[in-house]
Amino acid sequence: MNYPGGVKKNTTKNYGNRGMSLEEDINLTNQYYLNNNIAVIYKKPVPISVRKVDYKSRNDALIKEAMFLVPSTTDYNGLYKGCYIDFEAKETKLNNLPLSNIHKHQINHLKNIEEHKGISFIIVRFVLKDITFLLETKHLINFIDSETRKSIPFEYFNKYGYIINMKYTPRLDYLEVLRIIRSELK
Amino acid sequence: MNYPGGVKKNTTKNYGNRGMSLEEDINLTNQYYLNNNIAVIYKKPVPISVRKVDYKSRNDALIKEAMFLVPSTTDYNGLYKGCYIDFEAKETKLNNLPLSNIHKHQINHLKNIEEHKGISFIIVRFVLKDITFLLETKHLINFIDSETRKSIPFEYFNKYGYIINMKYTPRLDYLEVLRIIRSELK
Repeated sequence: MNYPGGVKKNTTKNYGNRGMSLEEDINLTNQYYLNNNIAVIYKKPVPISVRKVDYKSRNDALIKEAMFLVPSTTDYNGLYKGCYIDFEAKETKLNNLPLSNIHKHQINHLKNIEEHKGISFIIVRFVLKDITFLLETKHLINFIDSETRKSIPFEYFNKYGYIINMKYTPRLDYLEVLRIIRSELK
Repeated sequence: MNYPGGVKKNTTKNYGNRGMSLEEDINLTNQYYLNNNIAVIYKKPVPISVRKVDYKSRNDALIKEAMFLVPSTTDYNGLYKGCYIDFEAKETKLNNLPLSNIHKHQINHLKNIEEHKGISFIIVRFVLKDITFLLETKHLINFIDSETRKSIPFEYFNKYGYIINMKYTPRLDYLEVLRIIRSELK
């Protein structure tokens, strides 16, 4: 098995979730999809604004000052069976997902994707319960449009989301869920 | 007209190419596509590896040391009429495009996209001639597989590529070219 740069190898024999972040699980899963020619899905780099750079040589530049920027889109996108896939992933240690965790333009972006015939969703892990859900954008939007609460409760995910089971490999097979719920992928 | 963050406003009345980089033209074009609900295509952030961060406050982190990473994919991707779009853009001041300008894994990525039923290509501007071409991945791969030369000559683009005309708005309407050459978009 290949481990992509920056992803820590799971050295324990515990294949459950403990010790691995949601981001690590998704990165390993995407690497599995890529290695097995199933899908081409990547995490986007974190957007930054570079202010000062030291050019030691042409290929050896060191950034001396930069700022993190608010992302205008989501963290992950790619291609599966001819379909454009786009999603954001969040972990929460609470019994709900605070909406402040998702930027407004990210929600607009997810909406945009569905309007242009792509597939968009969020993946949310409830860390203390060790349960990971896939929630389609339409249900995210429905909640935002019909509720005044500032967080989405666990129960909403339990009702409208789909549990993504943890496996040995791929660790978090979210495409399996999509194949079941999206007619384009059947 | 809205100008996205980081894109310089063209303050001259010269609507030709001079003074605007290929990247600026593509960013303005993508912004136009987005504003007019035509397509959702973004430039990916430059990948970096952050080494040192000063956390002044929770929302005010200053990166004090970071390195640029070699990108594993292309600069631009997105969604148009339900189709996944993916491309790399390059400028050259020569009469050819040195293949060293495109990383091997970027070429593999472009190939991967076509295999998974996406649409991939490169956009190449010959700066001194002020001509911008769209070259489909199949022709890029054909050149690499059949030639031993380390650069793609202008003549190859002239034969197998499609000229993208500069307009007032959108500046570089590459989707117009795709509508003509790709049956999925007709």
